[in-house]
Amino acid sequence: MKRLDLTLYGVLDPAQCGERPIADLAAAAVGGGATAIQLRDKSGSARSTIEAVAALKGALTGRDVPIIVNDRVDVAHASGADGVHVGQDDLPPAAARAILGPKAIVGVTVRTDDEARATDLEPADYVGLGGVFATDSKINETVPIGTKGVARIGAILRSRKPGIGILAIAGINKANAASVISAGADGVAVLSALFGADDPVAAAKDLRGVIDPYLGEAAG
Amino acid sequence: MKRLDLTLYGVLDPAQCGERPIADLAAAAVGGGATAIQLRDKSGSARSTIEAVAALKGALTGRDVPIIVNDRVDVAHASGADGVHVGQDDLPPAAARAILGPKAIVGVTVRTDDEARATDLEPADYVGLGGVFATDSKINETVPIGTKGVARIGAILRSRKPGIGILAIAGINKANAASVISAGADGVAVLSALFGADDPVAAAKDLRGVIDPYLGEAAG
Repeated sequence: MKRLDLTLYGVLDPAQCGERPIADLAAAAVGGGATAIQLRDKSGSARSTIEAVAALKGALTGRDVPIIVNDRVDVAHASGADGVHVGQDDLPPAAARAILGPKAIVGVTVRTDDEARATDLEPADYVGLGGVFATDSKINETVPIGTKGVARIGAILRSRKPGIGILAIAGINKANAASVISAGADGVAVLSALFGADDPVAAAKDLRGVIDPYLGEAAG
Repeated sequence: MKRLDLTLYGVLDPAQCGERPIADLAAAAVGGGATAIQLRDKSGSARSTIEAVAALKGALTGRDVPIIVNDRVDVAHASGADGVHVGQDDLPPAAARAILGPKAIVGVTVRTDDEARATDLEPADYVGLGGVFATDSKINETVPIGTKGVARIGAILRSRKPGIGILAIAGINKANAASVISAGADGVAVLSALFGADDPVAAAKDLRGVIDPYLGEAAG
């Protein structure tokens, strides 16, 4: 199983990639410094998502970059992905862990202070925390928490499970990534800032250039 | 794990049940003679489908009637359902079996002669064969195979795996159920003929009354 490094976590949605093959986009992002790839395919069939994971695995052969499947724990298992990310309406983290086993990566979404207190963190390796900022990539069902929310909710999560990874998500780009890391996140999840860019290699490099100086000196 | 009896297999789609609670509908159908219940929820979240399985389990406590989840193998596992039904675009049967273990029920859809020859039947307990007749319940992506198709494709399937269950599906009702059983099916899957009826108990009884005399003397 691959090492989990949340620094620059690219969320790849085939429906938003247009004509560009997702394997090429993932390889470019990783070439520029992305440390994890999540496949979020809300419209494809299970079979097509399994094939997409296979394509990503091929593109990332030899790279210590995990491939994480959104929502579908069965697809993660069948495709040999490195892990799964579940939202509050998906399988509970413990149910995901029961299917995928102890070595898989399991992430869970937390959107509010209440969810930070109520979510079962024990089976989770990291939390996708947000939405942090407003975004068009995914409809924010909850009010954006901002960098203050990252610091406040991140502290709740770490008090419940020291060392759990905190991945900030939604509306994060080159201009605001440093503020999110300074607020205590271990990394940022990016969609359009990476895969919507004309040059994903350059976009990833730019994001790493902004993030890396702030990692390790966080408030969290 | 519950015994698999395909005789009268009710397919329950919460989106088509209107105001009627699915647990009540399932209990009524089983009270009238349904032998298996499939939950096909294409619009709900994984969490809501897990809750729906729990409601069905509560309604069918003490009955030897399995609950089978459509498509989502992870939901079947997390909810403690008795099995899963996968289509040609869902997880492969072997991947479903790998998650659910040897005791679970695994069914797979076969629509054509070619699929009957190509589908991995080894991990499957039964085949959902069809569409047999035209139907509004689900868009038939392939030409209805009719009762001749049930006999012909059923023979292919049984030559490849003797004893595999043959469940005829699509457009089956009181008027044509006997012809499908006579053609060699072990049972019929019904949607609207059962759960669209004003009285699902009576509808199930009527269907059993038509089917049962033809079971055991089939051509297959």
